Amino acid sequence: MSDLPKIVEFREEGPREGFQIEAKKFPLSARAELIDALSETGLKRIQVGSFVSPKAVPQMADTAELFQAIKRKPGVRYTALWLNEKGFHLARDTQHVDLEPNLLFYTSEKFSMSNNNCSCNDMRTRQSRWLDLYLDAGLKPDSAYVMTAFGCNYEGEIALDRVLNEFRFIIDLCAEKNCELPSLILADTMGWANPEEMKRRIGAVRELAPAARIGLHLHDTRGLGIANVMAAFEMGVDLFDASVAGLGGCPFASHGDQTASGNISTEDSVFLAHELGIETGIDLDRLIEAARLAEKILGRSLTGRVMHSGSLIKYRV
Amino acid sequence: MSDLPKIVEFREEGPREGFQIEAKKFPLSARAELIDALSETGLKRIQVGSFVSPKAVPQMADTAELFQAIKRKPGVRYTALWLNEKGFHLARDTQHVDLEPNLLFYTSEKFSMSNNNCSCNDMRTRQSRWLDLYLDAGLKPDSAYVMTAFGCNYEGEIALDRVLNEFRFIIDLCAEKNCELPSLILADTMGWANPEEMKRRIGAVRELAPAARIGLHLHDTRGLGIANVMAAFEMGVDLFDASVAGLGGCPFASHGDQTASGNISTEDSVFLAHELGIETGIDLDRLIEAARLAEKILGRSLTGRVMHSGSLIKYRV
Repeated sequence: MSDLPKIVEFREEGPREGFQIEAKKFPLSARAELIDALSETGLKRIQVGSFVSPKAVPQMADTAELFQAIKRKPGVRYTALWLNEKGFHLARDTQHVDLEPNLLFYTSEKFSMSNNNCSCNDMRTRQSRWLDLYLDAGLKPDSAYVMTAFGCNYEGEIALDRVLNEFRFIIDLCAEKNCELPSLILADTMGWANPEEMKRRIGAVRELAPAARIGLHLHDTRGLGIANVMAAFEMGVDLFDASVAGLGGCPFASHGDQTASGNISTEDSVFLAHELGIETGIDLDRLIEAARLAEKILGRSLTGRVMHSGSLIKYRV
Repeated sequence: MSDLPKIVEFREEGPREGFQIEAKKFPLSARAELIDALSETGLKRIQVGSFVSPKAVPQMADTAELFQAIKRKPGVRYTALWLNEKGFHLARDTQHVDLEPNLLFYTSEKFSMSNNNCSCNDMRTRQSRWLDLYLDAGLKPDSAYVMTAFGCNYEGEIALDRVLNEFRFIIDLCAEKNCELPSLILADTMGWANPEEMKRRIGAVRELAPAARIGLHLHDTRGLGIANVMAAFEMGVDLFDASVAGLGGCPFASHGDQTASGNISTEDSVFLAHELGIETGIDLDRLIEAARLAEKILGRSLTGRVMHSGSLIKYRV
């Protein structure tokens, strides 16, 4: 157990990933209230919304306004997602957006086409251009995501080699542009990972780039989310995207008329970390309050667990 | 990873543990339908109901009738729970009950008092009497449960020593009565376990009784259920109680007006096992169908995950 990290960073994606998947649009004031509650938990990075097509994702059409409505807490980065250059320019031109540029790579042709309307290879070309754009703007990419890094509902198992090829491309690209390597994020976009495969793939990426920071973007689609977090802790991984109350989900990872479960829950993951003696800088009970607020806003029971049972803090006083 | 068991046994507790906690009583025919569906999944043991006070647990008052209503599948054991000698006699006198006597031990005085209206020590005395009763009836105890083996909402952390003391008592008692040692079950009744403590406590019980079969009864109260299952797999544990769709929950493990989550979900646990190449003898897709039937019967969304997203079987054909 000596490989457990001492400190783990959780990045909150609920306000973006959680609300973009909902059928109805929720009031800006309610989303601002949730973000403000999250700001008080000790989280250091909160993804507020996305600058994407308002036609395709009307739930995020007011992201620029939302950035103006939230109470910015010093020390917290308020970030946004974009999927093309237009989106980046919008984010850059919006006040109060903390620009944390990411690079995005696909391993599944069919998912790449569905999600971004291009081939995996086209995406590489685009990302090379994005990197130039970021570097020209004086920004360096924060994280490089490889999507469906464990498997894909469209294409089935994704061979480890395909995943490593994308990371190899990223490493070469950054070397070529004289750019520091961003964090390398394995995204289990559709919930295919299991703890053994988690360890195997993290190990392989680490072998490829021993100095890189490795992170995970996990979905709890098939219930193994927290076991995968544990496996990643055991591999020393110290960076996770997560969603308060388990909000969100990949809209393509569904079965019949059932909606697939969302991201790993931030508070359940923080609870696991704390139980293992790993620091997160997060006040778990405040985070649980924020999760309950999310449930109130959405008006239905959400999938987070510790938000319903309560943490163990009060028993240990 | 070489300690993973090759075959794991899951014992289904949903029909009993799931329905006893519900505020309303569900029709016998619906519960029989669920049990019949579970019988077709490959599960080898299904807990049908309990012979307990109909005043305290009216949901289980028709357990004897339920045993007559189900379609018994050859090779499946249909078991029942009882908490006193009267309950055992009722079970014994009911047709079609497969008697699998358990011994029950407490580590928390307050929980023992709430759940069984006696002290931990009184419970030991009772269990000694139960064992005589079973042996006199030509039955041997199948499993010995130590409750709240990780922690208790009433008493906080339960020291490992207290847990080991109960197991030591069981070992000595069986030696004294010349009775084969039953499976030793650590019950995380209120969801206090984490993967490290899981490994530590399983290791300690194994050291105490190297030849015993160790099993787990886990609740997913705080979201770590599946990570705890994984930790137990890594310790070679091959016996788990579980509830289809994550039904159930410990009625005492709640926070304010929120209901605590139930048992670990059978189908999510089976999914994990299969993903790791562990055999269970269970047809996962049929089990998912049974979980969806449970959701239909209860009329609300249940906490199981893979029942909502679907397994990965169809992608691998």
